[in-house]
Order: sequence, then structure tokens, then C-alpha cells
Amino acid sequence: MIEVEVKARVNDFDDVKGKLNEIEALKEKTEHQEDIYFNNIQLRDFEKTDEALRIRTTTIHDQKTIILTYKGAKLDSDSKTRKEIEVVVEESKNAGLILENLGFKPVETIKKDRTTYSYKGFIITLDKVYKVGNFVEIEKEAIEGESFKDTLDEIFKIYKKLGIENGFERRSYLELLGIYNKNLM
Amino acid sequence: MIEVEVKARVNDFDDVKGKLNEIEALKEKTEHQEDIYFNNIQLRDFEKTDEALRIRTTTIHDQKTIILTYKGAKLDSDSKTRKEIEVVVEESKNAGLILENLGFKPVETIKKDRTTYSYKGFIITLDKVYKVGNFVEIEKEAIEGESFKDTLDEIFKIYKKLGIENGFERRSYLELLGIYNKNLM
Repeated sequence: MIEVEVKARVNDFDDVKGKLNEIEALKEKTEHQEDIYFNNIQLRDFEKTDEALRIRTTTIHDQKTIILTYKGAKLDSDSKTRKEIEVVVEESKNAGLILENLGFKPVETIKKDRTTYSYKGFIITLDKVYKVGNFVEIEKEAIEGESFKDTLDEIFKIYKKLGIENGFERRSYLELLGIYNKNLM
Repeated sequence: MIEVEVKARVNDFDDVKGKLNEIEALKEKTEHQEDIYFNNIQLRDFEKTDEALRIRTTTIHDQKTIILTYKGAKLDSDSKTRKEIEVVVEESKNAGLILENLGFKPVETIKKDRTTYSYKGFIITLDKVYKVGNFVEIEKEAIEGESFKDTLDEIFKIYKKLGIENGFERRSYLELLGIYNKNLM
């Protein structure tokens, strides 16, 4: 399974929300996500290997779901395919402590408010990422082996409908937060 | 919190069960446990450092509970105190796959049927450990700083009541299974 996804930085969500209303996109949910990323440079530096180890706590109406995720390196640069393994854990603190005792250090925490819409088989998320900014992401699952070009074209057509024609961003929130943190030093 | 515990190898549980009945020990539960132990000798060899990383699947009447546990090295040889961190995970397979992607290999699986009794503040477990044998374990939580001698004396008095006066075993099931496996080679 491959995800075709594009994200764009926006100033605020007011215009976008109006446009989403106009095209009758369906608002699915609003949630708060807190992602703790771990690294163990003694083992191997995930920043260099393009892997990720993450504990994500998602809160919807005081209901918390915690997921431990390993992401492998991207298998090729075009498709962005990567191995992803998830398991739900009962709580974040002890899951993190076990990782720390295995030598993994929490290196970064990303907090965001995410509102998710669905529209014609696409998922549109409005992410307010603390210290990083506001982003609109549009994604669709693609079938392996197929050309992504048609899907990408459709994604950019939706961006146009939402009044977004620039600000596209290929870097991850983790990379962008890293740049933000470096600028503070 | 410190656990004072002693275990003894027995031939079978028939006599013990009769004696447990006589002294009116309360049968609490019978469960099946499957423990997968992981090691990562590239990071450090847990066999040498006396640490353990385990996924335990406990089944009672088709109801599975899966716990990921890290055990630190014993802090001193007398008290058997060690750091222990647990987190409930939703399923075993992906938890194991995440560990494997972090370089941890499943090195041993221990399967046992465990019946637990309670008796005057002590926990008595009858463990039928596959490929290792049958064991009766008696344990009690002790308060840190107190002498364990009194508790140990009480434990051996209970063993006597159960008709067990030898076969005491200090090695873990993991160590005993290791010896069993080596003898097969």
C-alpha cells in the first residue's frame, strides 16, 4: 500500500474551511496528537537512516489512544513507500521508559491539532503544528505498481479548489521543527 | 517493592494439589503463558547483563493479555530486586516486529500452564513449563529494608506442609531451557 500525499503551508484555516464547505467535503474528526520521536545513535542514527520510532498519543474528547510505530526507510524516492509497523499500547510513559532502557532517547516531541475531512476518496487534513505552522495535507492510497501521476494531478486540482497554489512543502514536521529549533540556538 | 520467592522442582502436582486442599489454600486462576524473550547482542548481550526483554501472552479462557516487559539487572544478589517496566500492548506480532526492526531477535520462547493459589498472604504457583518440568513457586512481597529471613522461613514452612523438602531451584526457566536446548545439540 502506497500513500500519495502532498502538503502545503497556509497562513490560517479560515479560507480553507469556507472552501471545504463549498465543495461539500465531509468533516470527520478533530483530534490532538502528541508524537514523541526516539533515536539511538549508538545503535544507528535514525536521522541518517531515514527510519523513525514514535509514540503517538491521540486525544479525542479526553479519550486517549497510544500507538507505538516503527517506520522503515523510504524504499524509493518516487513512491515514498516505507515499511510501517504499529501496535496500540496501553500507556505512553512505560512504553517510553522501556525504549529508554533499551538505549533509545526521546529526541523531539511534535504537537498538533488535526482536523480531518474526506472528499471523493481523498483525505484532507488541517494540521496546526505547534512551533511549525499551519498545513493542509491531501492524500490518497494508491495501488502499488500504478502511476501516481493521475492521483497527483487530482490532488493539485483539489488544492486549486481550496485556493491553495503555493507553499507546498516536502519536508516532514520533524525536519521543520529541527530547523525551527536550530534557529532558536 | 521486593519479591521474596523460592521455587522447587516436583515430579507432578497430584500430591501438592491434595495438600493445598488440606491447608485450604484458595485457587485463584489457571492460565497459559507464552513468553518470547528478545536479545540484541549488537547493543549488549542481555544474557551477560542479566537484563530481559519479554513479550508475554497470557491466555485465560480464550481471553488474551499481552504485556511487553523490560527487566533490569538484579540490583544486588540478596534481595533479587530489579527494575521492571511493563506496558500492555494490543497484540504480540507487531510488538515483536517493531523490536526485530530495532535489532532485537527473539531468542527463546517459554510456554507454561500456571495455576495460582493464595495462602495467608503468600502466592503459590504451580507451573508446568514445557520442556523444562513442573515447579512449585512460593512468593511474597516484602517491604524494602526489612529482613527477608522471617519471610523465607515462612516460605520453607509452607513447602514442608506441601510435602516438598528438596528440589529447590535458583535458576530461571530461561536458564533451565537453555541447558535443555544445549543438551539436545
